[in-house]
Amino acid sequence: MKIFAYGIRDDEKPSLEEWKAINPEIEVDYTQDLLTSETAKLAKGADSVVVYQQLDYNRDSLAALADVGVTNLSLRNVGTDNIDFDAAREFKFNISNVPVYSPNAIAEHSMIQLARLFRQTKELDAKVAEHNLRWAPTIGREMRMQTVGIIGTGHIGRVAINILKGFGAKVIAYDKYPNAELMSEGLYVDTLDELYAQADAVSLYVPGLPENYHLIDAEAIGKMKDGVVIVNTARGNLIDVDAIIAGLNSGKISGFGMDVYENEVGLFNEDWTNRDFPDEKIADLIARKNVLVTPHTAFYTTKAVSEMVQQSFDAAVVFGKGEKPETFVEY
Amino acid sequence: MKIFAYGIRDDEKPSLEEWKAINPEIEVDYTQDLLTSETAKLAKGADSVVVYQQLDYNRDSLAALADVGVTNLSLRNVGTDNIDFDAAREFKFNISNVPVYSPNAIAEHSMIQLARLFRQTKELDAKVAEHNLRWAPTIGREMRMQTVGIIGTGHIGRVAINILKGFGAKVIAYDKYPNAELMSEGLYVDTLDELYAQADAVSLYVPGLPENYHLIDAEAIGKMKDGVVIVNTARGNLIDVDAIIAGLNSGKISGFGMDVYENEVGLFNEDWTNRDFPDEKIADLIARKNVLVTPHTAFYTTKAVSEMVQQSFDAAVVFGKGEKPETFVEY
Ligand SMILES: NC(=O)c1ccc[n+]([C@@H]2O[C@H](COP(=O)([O-])OP(=O)(O)OC[C@H]3O[C@@H](n4cnc5c(N)ncnc54)[C@H](O)[C@@H]3O)[C@@H](O)[C@H]2O)c1
Ligand SMILES: NC(=O)c1ccc[n+]([C@@H]2O[C@H](COP(=O)([O-])OP(=O)(O)OC[C@H]3O[C@@H](n4cnc5c(N)ncnc54)[C@H](O)[C@@H]3O)[C@@H](O)[C@H]2O)c1
Repeated sequence: MKIFAYGIRDDEKPSLEEWKAINPEIEVDYTQDLLTSETAKLAKGADSVVVYQQLDYNRDSLAALADVGVTNLSLRNVGTDNIDFDAAREFKFNISNVPVYSPNAIAEHSMIQLARLFRQTKELDAKVAEHNLRWAPTIGREMRMQTVGIIGTGHIGRVAINILKGFGAKVIAYDKYPNAELMSEGLYVDTLDELYAQADAVSLYVPGLPENYHLIDAEAIGKMKDGVVIVNTARGNLIDVDAIIAGLNSGKISGFGMDVYENEVGLFNEDWTNRDFPDEKIADLIARKNVLVTPHTAFYTTKAVSEMVQQSFDAAVVFGKGEKPETFVEY
Repeated sequence: MKIFAYGIRDDEKPSLEEWKAINPEIEVDYTQDLLTSETAKLAKGADSVVVYQQLDYNRDSLAALADVGVTNLSLRNVGTDNIDFDAAREFKFNISNVPVYSPNAIAEHSMIQLARLFRQTKELDAKVAEHNLRWAPTIGREMRMQTVGIIGTGHIGRVAINILKGFGAKVIAYDKYPNAELMSEGLYVDTLDELYAQADAVSLYVPGLPENYHLIDAEAIGKMKDGVVIVNTARGNLIDVDAIIAGLNSGKISGFGMDVYENEVGLFNEDWTNRDFPDEKIADLIARKNVLVTPHTAFYTTKAVSEMVQQSFDAAVVFGKGEKPETFVEY
């Protein structure tokens, strides 16, 4: 069997080599180029292709792939919004993704950032960098003294809760579909309003569905405690960034951690050094001492990358045998 | 009863006001000045004084204090090395300190710094600050994938272990006097060599006794895994900084977090901005992307400061009643 992979990055190569070593019977070839109508022909002779890109899987590239006889497409990531499903249907594509690669990657990042905001590490690091080694007034707050509100108790939210318990923080949680185990622990509050009223920090772990659009807006922030810390590693559209900036300006919000942004496509994962930075709001947030911006890197760990590579190649093999992998995408 | 306090900082005032509110029968007066032979007379009429300073409690200042009739001295911190005990004995001083104010303050800081080193946050933050929003090659490692070696399982080490468990990390520990509960959990290894051989990270929680001088030297580092991460929030003399720098240069050590330094007195808690920085080694460490230096601020949290104020004032009251507080210092 033969698998061809597109867009392989340097940091994926160790995991790919590991996978090859335990699957010596599979022929693997790859390129760092993305899948386009031009590069599609590189996959000729393969049983399945493995892909990961922001660039659209459009009619042209899918047609070109089908043209060289390949209709098994295994995504190394979760998101499928950039696939032209009409074209995929027409050319009878079998598609798989990697829905759960490492909830810990995101949960750990969110909790490290939360702890850093309570601890004022950005302010302290900046002082140390310029050789100001005075403590005051950069005093920290301890995680164990905080009540942290977790919105969304799915895969990632649940890992975040375990981390918070290790710190000895008080956890309160809200989910539209509560988890039985957490329910028995008595962690849930009944409404978001209750969570906002009690929480010293709010961290988000819900999907970016239309119903959750701007869940955190001026009204929600108004219901929160003075000096609240907010962290969003879930989806950009959950938050009204203008309301966050207003809250930071008034002091209502004492710290903000963001890994995702409504308008992140085309902005994140680009190098703007020596170029005009196109988003004033994000430039403003990056410059603040009580804000931690990361460019959608919460997922970016060696473990997560290895899971994405290995699960997608496993799925590609199952497709190659004419079977349906567990991570089959129904469309 | 009257208590007089020296060296009260702005960040201590809220805790002091809280204490006064619950002890309305005690008259409290204070200054931001430190205790010297000149300022001693401010305490005239007080039953006890409360102090916290790096400056020596020398014969002159103790004599001056005794001279105005005050021989009860309650330290707001733990360290007593700057007291002239011969003079204290001569003037019959009763002394108390605050040996345990918040193990969590230090444990949390050490684990946040450890997680940050695995996550390469300093490198990523620097990229974001200059508007380079590309992920690669700044990939993180997850805490849950690491084996962390804890040296010293006293008050602080045990809190660090709980935090690590929350992250899902594997914990191994070493202590000369093992703790029964941790023993039953099977966390201990028998020797430091075993700990060094297995640990992806090593964090220190032992006292800076002469027997522990340069516990972490070139030989110890040589026994550790390649790419080890080391964190020291305990005492500066536990570590040979030259050996650390050599390990960072060779790549043997992939990350280093330090809150304490052998030669920190006179260097830390000073502002060197616009002045020649007197320690080249520390300047070198501060400038590295895989090193996090903090100036002995692990203890510096609102909770710890509040404990230091409240416990020392409580002890001063006990002294005022002619009794011995639990935190009495035998000398
Ligand atoms: N930053 C990153 O790198 C990154 C990586 C992966 C996932 N994510 C995001 O993290 C979030 C959580 O992912 P997950 O794997 O835990 O998802 P999940 O599906 O396992 O859990 C989501 C939970 O949210 C709940 N929920 C949905 N809408 C809600 C609402 N309005 N109020 C309360 N609860 C609601 C669901 O009942 C579910 O329990 C998602 O938004 C995902 O896109 C971010
Ligand atoms: N950075 C800061 O702001 C800060 C603040 C407070 C304390 N500290 C330091 O943190 C450290 C730990 O404090 P603690 O309150 O947990 O102390 P502790 O006395 O409760 O625990 C120390 C432990 O170390 C063990 N030990 C002593 N020597 C050892 C050795 N050679 N090998 C193995 N184990 C050994 C003891 O058996 C004990 O269990 C101390 O060095 C203390 O000075 C730092």
